[in-house]
Amino acid sequence: MTDAYDPARQKTIAFLKERYGEGFSLPDDLINPVLPVLLSHRSVRSYEKKPVPDGLLEMIVAAGQSASTSSNLQLWSVVAVEDPARKEYLSELCAGQKHIRDCPLFLVWLADGSRVARAAEAQGVKAEGLDYVEAVMLAAVDTALAAQNAVVAMESLGLGTVYIGGIRNNMDKVIEELRLPPYVVPCFGMCVGWPSESVTASVKPRLPQAAVLHRETYDPDQETDAIAEYDATLTDFQNRVGMPARGWQPTIVRRMQNEEALTGRHRLREILEKAGYLMK
Amino acid sequence: MTDAYDPARQKTIAFLKERYGEGFSLPDDLINPVLPVLLSHRSVRSYEKKPVPDGLLEMIVAAGQSASTSSNLQLWSVVAVEDPARKEYLSELCAGQKHIRDCPLFLVWLADGSRVARAAEAQGVKAEGLDYVEAVMLAAVDTALAAQNAVVAMESLGLGTVYIGGIRNNMDKVIEELRLPPYVVPCFGMCVGWPSESVTASVKPRLPQAAVLHRETYDPDQETDAIAEYDATLTDFQNRVGMPARGWQPTIVRRMQNEEALTGRHRLREILEKAGYLMK
Repeated sequence: MTDAYDPARQKTIAFLKERYGEGFSLPDDLINPVLPVLLSHRSVRSYEKKPVPDGLLEMIVAAGQSASTSSNLQLWSVVAVEDPARKEYLSELCAGQKHIRDCPLFLVWLADGSRVARAAEAQGVKAEGLDYVEAVMLAAVDTALAAQNAVVAMESLGLGTVYIGGIRNNMDKVIEELRLPPYVVPCFGMCVGWPSESVTASVKPRLPQAAVLHRETYDPDQETDAIAEYDATLTDFQNRVGMPARGWQPTIVRRMQNEEALTGRHRLREILEKAGYLMK
Repeated sequence: MTDAYDPARQKTIAFLKERYGEGFSLPDDLINPVLPVLLSHRSVRSYEKKPVPDGLLEMIVAAGQSASTSSNLQLWSVVAVEDPARKEYLSELCAGQKHIRDCPLFLVWLADGSRVARAAEAQGVKAEGLDYVEAVMLAAVDTALAAQNAVVAMESLGLGTVYIGGIRNNMDKVIEELRLPPYVVPCFGMCVGWPSESVTASVKPRLPQAAVLHRETYDPDQETDAIAEYDATLTDFQNRVGMPARGWQPTIVRRMQNEEALTGRHRLREILEKAGYLMK
């Protein structure tokens, strides 16, 4: 991060090309050294055998707490797991993803309404707002904003991360293992470590902007060409990195096709209700 | 962002003090110019009468699309609203928050499963995964990760933002106004503009880290002192900025006490179902 202006511009151009292909650029006056940190994100699943720096957890939490939180409710917490046996078990619960076992630090980000529930109890009232879908929405968004700030902070230091949605595959068992009280549920996990020098993680191409950016009102017609183009781009990418080359649309349909494809997460409602979130 | 190392350290120390009071520090080797951008966040609700830069929307989307997205599903879109009449109307729908009317650019961040639904339809199948609570969780997290990257990008340029959860107060009317197709719902709004030079937005103190950071397992006992301390800190802050000085716990209980306190958002489930999300 001691780069002057020009290296930031060069990096920005390079990362935008990986994300969108040729022909996409940004005005020079919008480019600064923060932008390439954001644009260069890739999920890192292989790590050096090297501990994370002292003070990192405090830095993660400071960055996370600096993010916005709806009405200052601060509806999240995080459990830092370093114990090898616990990481091994959590790895099993997350479809055996070995990077959970291998990373030096595994974070479980929690949607946490329990402080509101306890504060209400102490005042002799019930926080009935927690009974609604809105409570889960508030907590999920708060948790994600905090976690993403933490990711940016870590990536600015050269650390690598990967979000683990699989923590919801067996949400009930994770709740038990981490001894989560009522109104505390795992939102997602996150592996943290120094990126392996022998395994290169790729910047993944995304949908052309025409598919996601709308002006004034939503226009579904503007996406047709963009999505066809992206199917081809992603097929190339999948071929290049050795993934099954299906294109984008067949991949996402497969991922969301039925209950089985949710790998246990079809039980989310049941488990959230048991944790206290009635989802009215 | 042309700062060398020492200004980053001075800023980091200053912002950590505003966030946590005295006595909290980070090791020098974790400090770089990105960190103060994250730590200095404050919600900005007053803007100069000055347009946002050309190319900003494309930068926002590039930063947002560079964030992680579960299984590359990319379950979000964004509508950029600049039309004064539309901003005025959206302001009315969000409890009359005047900054929505006054900001030069208002973003509505959308949880968007419609591309999955359309891709499935084109293949002659149904994406049954969209029927589950998990689909809304996936989309809300994807949307929030993207939006937070966008916020970091904008704040690194000196722009100010504020998230608008109030966009969910009248979610059905927002869906109608922005012509959102099935499976597309507003997750939150965001005002964007150049911070007013005459109105200073404050860095808000947050809970002591002991209340949110747990090691190995969740320990509710560790938070008791931290929360009592924070009630006092926040009372001081509320006094300083002219808010009702209630402390934290009474404020959050009030905010979540009952259906009325959700200001229309108790209808989220009904509106999500109508949009296609059955929330099984």
